[in-house]
Amino acid sequence: MIEKIRLAHGSGGEMMASLVAEVFYASLGGNIKDANDSAILDLPSGKVAFTTDSFVIDPLFFPGGDIGKLAFCGTINDLAAAGAQPIAVSASFIIEEGTDINDLKHIAASMGTVSHRTGIPVVAGDTKVVDRGNADKVFITTSGIGVIPEGVDYHPRNIQEGDKIITSGTIGDHGYCITAMREGISIQSSVISDCQPLHELVASLTPLASEVRTARDATRGGVGMVLNEWAQQSGKGIIIFEDMLPIKEEVEGGCALLGLEPIYLANEGKMLFAVAPHKASEALILLKAHPTGENTAVIGEVVGGRPQVVMETRWGTRRLVPTPSGEILPRIC
Amino acid sequence: MIEKIRLAHGSGGEMMASLVAEVFYASLGGNIKDANDSAILDLPSGKVAFTTDSFVIDPLFFPGGDIGKLAFCGTINDLAAAGAQPIAVSASFIIEEGTDINDLKHIAASMGTVSHRTGIPVVAGDTKVVDRGNADKVFITTSGIGVIPEGVDYHPRNIQEGDKIITSGTIGDHGYCITAMREGISIQSSVISDCQPLHELVASLTPLASEVRTARDATRGGVGMVLNEWAQQSGKGIIIFEDMLPIKEEVEGGCALLGLEPIYLANEGKMLFAVAPHKASEALILLKAHPTGENTAVIGEVVGGRPQVVMETRWGTRRLVPTPSGEILPRIC
Repeated sequence: MIEKIRLAHGSGGEMMASLVAEVFYASLGGNIKDANDSAILDLPSGKVAFTTDSFVIDPLFFPGGDIGKLAFCGTINDLAAAGAQPIAVSASFIIEEGTDINDLKHIAASMGTVSHRTGIPVVAGDTKVVDRGNADKVFITTSGIGVIPEGVDYHPRNIQEGDKIITSGTIGDHGYCITAMREGISIQSSVISDCQPLHELVASLTPLASEVRTARDATRGGVGMVLNEWAQQSGKGIIIFEDMLPIKEEVEGGCALLGLEPIYLANEGKMLFAVAPHKASEALILLKAHPTGENTAVIGEVVGGRPQVVMETRWGTRRLVPTPSGEILPRIC
Repeated sequence: MIEKIRLAHGSGGEMMASLVAEVFYASLGGNIKDANDSAILDLPSGKVAFTTDSFVIDPLFFPGGDIGKLAFCGTINDLAAAGAQPIAVSASFIIEEGTDINDLKHIAASMGTVSHRTGIPVVAGDTKVVDRGNADKVFITTSGIGVIPEGVDYHPRNIQEGDKIITSGTIGDHGYCITAMREGISIQSSVISDCQPLHELVASLTPLASEVRTARDATRGGVGMVLNEWAQQSGKGIIIFEDMLPIKEEVEGGCALLGLEPIYLANEGKMLFAVAPHKASEALILLKAHPTGENTAVIGEVVGGRPQVVMETRWGTRRLVPTPSGEILPRIC
């Protein structure tokens, strides 16, 4: 019946109650329904990871996902990067007046689909509506709680010289997919976003215990950003090898055309790991055995010297891979 | 040096790192700094409350607070309403390009002030920047985790016939304060927002155990909204007495002028309780003893009959207090 969001949908009254029931409860299920402002969780004792992220992506829908799936997976992957098994997610929606309610339903449904598939519930939420022109359709902020198994500590301070740097698959897919849409070249593109939850992939490395030094999902700023942070946080140098980077042919070609570097493009379904050298091949086997890790590859290693990232090019030369500065790609996640 | 937010401040690169350091770490301290996407918390075993809320208030600054203080207190109070003692908060900022960085610093500082005063850390955060015209200055989403003491269960299903309805102070202050600003009558107004954390106030009732049936902070939709939800969730009727409602004279007069009902105005520092009748006077003493509960008052009781809210007016007549419908007051919180 209602088709466009009106201000009254966000004002806490009856219209809001019906919006929440029709759009959010319908897709996100009973957990959120009983939440009564706070959800009550029974947590096993131990260390808990807690994370938050806002998603302001434009466009809302893209090949391989939409802002709902992205917001859910993004928070799951932040928990996974801390070595945590996700327990629950919250989702807060800021909606622009005039937004199509069918778009909202679509977004809530795709969030609900990943939630049901992973068995990780959305337990708390909020909805605010702002007047037209004061937001861009829909922004979503998700937060998550996860439990960290005994003995797991993935802080980058654990990185040691000699560790192998591993990516769980091809790099730059999400960033390229969104850029291609914006540039109007997506119609010929077969690249879809890699948006997917990675907590099971990370859990598959639990048997390696502290031989897995650290993990991080390479989102905004891409692999280049994460490796620079690792170099800074560990005080170690990192070298990566250009010809070992798994990059889809089309992403590589498109990036050359658009003047972008795949290494700085956002990923939404790829995890980077630093693993002790004598366990790297075992890690590769474990990761490749998981559907989300088929294209896992070693791309570099931790070295002595200055805390910076260096790339050895195809031609054997070396160049610095600096922290990206300025506008990487706005609203890519 | 930098004065206005630019898109590059949100893109994950160096400019963002300096913004985060200069604005957020400076005020919110070291806890968030080490967060590394996820914060790692040591929680005592037991039940955990988890909540989230987005704040889209306009204007950002108001007498008695600003969006930063509001976002922090709002989440603390949601946890408090679940009977939880807050452990940690996350804060995610969506910022419009062109926003004054001094405004952001002010907002982060006032969030930091409540955080330090209460001892509840902001442990995780996120910053996104959207292009001009795609957000209205600053939106903040806060989430929180709290630990619920053994035996505490404040779900509204516990409400019983005969329970007294208690408010921890005057009603409508926050909603009136914001409305007065918008209507341009704030210059003669002495009413400031009641924005304040209430977790200690709620904790003062712990000795009454399950004689405190439920609690809720009366934000969007005000006391009228909360009581209607309680009636629905408990299946009981609720009667309130107009002459027992603590309302500031100016709020009452201003509301009459503006055609508003104080009972539907948002509060940001008032808690409602349902308490077993034989413990109501003890609850009053405990609440009044706390600085945030000075004006605590019994305003009604739970009765049989239909699950609805009725007000007995000053003249002895009775009228229904329905769930507010349509636009209450947009962007009041």
